[in-house]
Amino acid sequence: MHVHALVATSETDPLIPGTIERRDPGPRDVVIHIAWAGVCHSDIHTVHGDWGPAPFPLTVGHEIAGTVAAVGTEVSKFKVGDRVGVGTMVNSCGICANCQAGLEQYCLNGNTQAYGSRDRDGSITQGGYSSMIVVDEDFVLRVPSALPFETVAPLLCAGITTYSPLRHWGAGPGKRVAIVGLGGLGHMGVQLAHAMGAEVTVLSRTLNKMEDGLRLGADRYYATADDKTFVELAGTFDLIVNTVSAALPVDRFLGLLRQDGTLVNVGAPAQAMSLHVQSLLARRLSYAGSVTGSVAETQEMLDFCAEKGISAVVEVIAADQINEAWKRVLSSDVRYRFVIDASTFA
Amino acid sequence: MHVHALVATSETDPLIPGTIERRDPGPRDVVIHIAWAGVCHSDIHTVHGDWGPAPFPLTVGHEIAGTVAAVGTEVSKFKVGDRVGVGTMVNSCGICANCQAGLEQYCLNGNTQAYGSRDRDGSITQGGYSSMIVVDEDFVLRVPSALPFETVAPLLCAGITTYSPLRHWGAGPGKRVAIVGLGGLGHMGVQLAHAMGAEVTVLSRTLNKMEDGLRLGADRYYATADDKTFVELAGTFDLIVNTVSAALPVDRFLGLLRQDGTLVNVGAPAQAMSLHVQSLLARRLSYAGSVTGSVAETQEMLDFCAEKGISAVVEVIAADQINEAWKRVLSSDVRYRFVIDASTFA
Repeated sequence: MHVHALVATSETDPLIPGTIERRDPGPRDVVIHIAWAGVCHSDIHTVHGDWGPAPFPLTVGHEIAGTVAAVGTEVSKFKVGDRVGVGTMVNSCGICANCQAGLEQYCLNGNTQAYGSRDRDGSITQGGYSSMIVVDEDFVLRVPSALPFETVAPLLCAGITTYSPLRHWGAGPGKRVAIVGLGGLGHMGVQLAHAMGAEVTVLSRTLNKMEDGLRLGADRYYATADDKTFVELAGTFDLIVNTVSAALPVDRFLGLLRQDGTLVNVGAPAQAMSLHVQSLLARRLSYAGSVTGSVAETQEMLDFCAEKGISAVVEVIAADQINEAWKRVLSSDVRYRFVIDASTFA
Repeated sequence: MHVHALVATSETDPLIPGTIERRDPGPRDVVIHIAWAGVCHSDIHTVHGDWGPAPFPLTVGHEIAGTVAAVGTEVSKFKVGDRVGVGTMVNSCGICANCQAGLEQYCLNGNTQAYGSRDRDGSITQGGYSSMIVVDEDFVLRVPSALPFETVAPLLCAGITTYSPLRHWGAGPGKRVAIVGLGGLGHMGVQLAHAMGAEVTVLSRTLNKMEDGLRLGADRYYATADDKTFVELAGTFDLIVNTVSAALPVDRFLGLLRQDGTLVNVGAPAQAMSLHVQSLLARRLSYAGSVTGSVAETQEMLDFCAEKGISAVVEVIAADQINEAWKRVLSSDVRYRFVIDASTFA
């Protein structure tokens, strides 16, 4: 089956409209008519080769919301017409200790990513900037009807990537949480941490987005470009979730943690980080990393968002605006997530 | 009161015999006749200025075992003749959140270290390489009679510094623990982790001390100088306690951790550490730091050692052997802790 898509042909050329092949659905597959495709900074990193060479031609996109168009004979969880989502993973080995423990995002044999990954049939997976996708039902999420459909796609990466560490490190009432960066991930992190009952502070480079941050649920908003921030907030937070994929002055941010606090990176900057052990020793601190969440946890997050009335703040674009949108993502000029209207892929 | 001591007069001169002043005991003070004084690498770091300039003249030593010689009028926990210990802390503010939570090792106002610290009366604290010390009863430990007296002193630093992170990060049955370095701290960490029921692996530069390591309770012993170690043990440990105060290839050691594992530094190398966030992201890992333990936890550790028949392996020296002993510590030529016979300070 050939479907419409946006295709990257090299690290430097613009994305172009084209077609890609989708496998014939197997008995456990769900065929999804994509309605909305979120634009994640990872898409750009991948194409630009920031994390290593990409397999071109490649269609990226791992924030997918759509409607079930067909199901395989053994599919039991979904039926035609259901609103569904797909995130960064489309398969995993299913048999390793982590998969067995419901942590397929940490599959020991390497899970299959939504795009650029070697699929079971040997082909390279192609992502969500397209009109249709075929996914094993175990990696398809149910989208609660309460969620505005065009805001759902970003939850599948930006949402779960912040939800998972907030849950894992116990964000909730009585906890002070800081979110570093108010971009696609950060604007979800603020809403989620606030809805979990934590006291939320945004640490952004400047105060430019302060009004948005407070409206999204932040209790406080500080500029990290201002040295006084690191004095005033010293020893404050139980948890800092850093959504910025760039070099971080780790020691300075560790200085903002209180006893037994944790600084978690959810982005993957290419360069090495440097820190002094003394910063960790001072208050038994931890520097940690977290990637996305499990399928079950992603479902939990979607249900939580529906229950709490949380959604991504999106700017809808047509397919032919993608190259301009990528430029704007690179200059942090998006509030807070581009979502491609997949009807324009035709 | 003037007491015999070994005194450092500069970063480079040898320690010399001399006398230091101890305060007149207040109502809450315990006067301790020191019997044994452990030699910790920190003593040398401090005098050599590795962590900043030291206040000379200075008497170091924070592994102290002795007998109560006198008590203040309000002292209720100890009486003359009791066997007692003193470790790295001799006071803390008592009122901050951490002190109130029984974590005075992380006192937010800075606790008073056994030596080189500004005491409440404005004087600089002087440590255990001496014949007598005067300490607030809240920072004095009870030494169980089952512990061979000359082996007790190293428990007060080397013992508690490894015991605390092992307990905090849940070493016990079903957990795989690695101890990096088989020195003063490491040889305690191996015994303690084994007694807690964990499966214990020593990661030492070479296999030179393998026999000792296995006898102390290690299940496995690997050389970190051998690259194959990092292949064979990839993804193995729940907890790695790094006792080596030197630059560490952090990424390589993180590679040895299994899902949700933690690498804990208990030493404080002066140089910065470098790591890639990807190493942390891979399996939701943490890089953490821990310093000593609380007073209550130190008592718990002493009681645990008595119950389990654990003690430090010591080489007893006389006061006039200290400069030679320091040289041997610096060349890792001690199995596993020097303890000064305090009767030779006279």
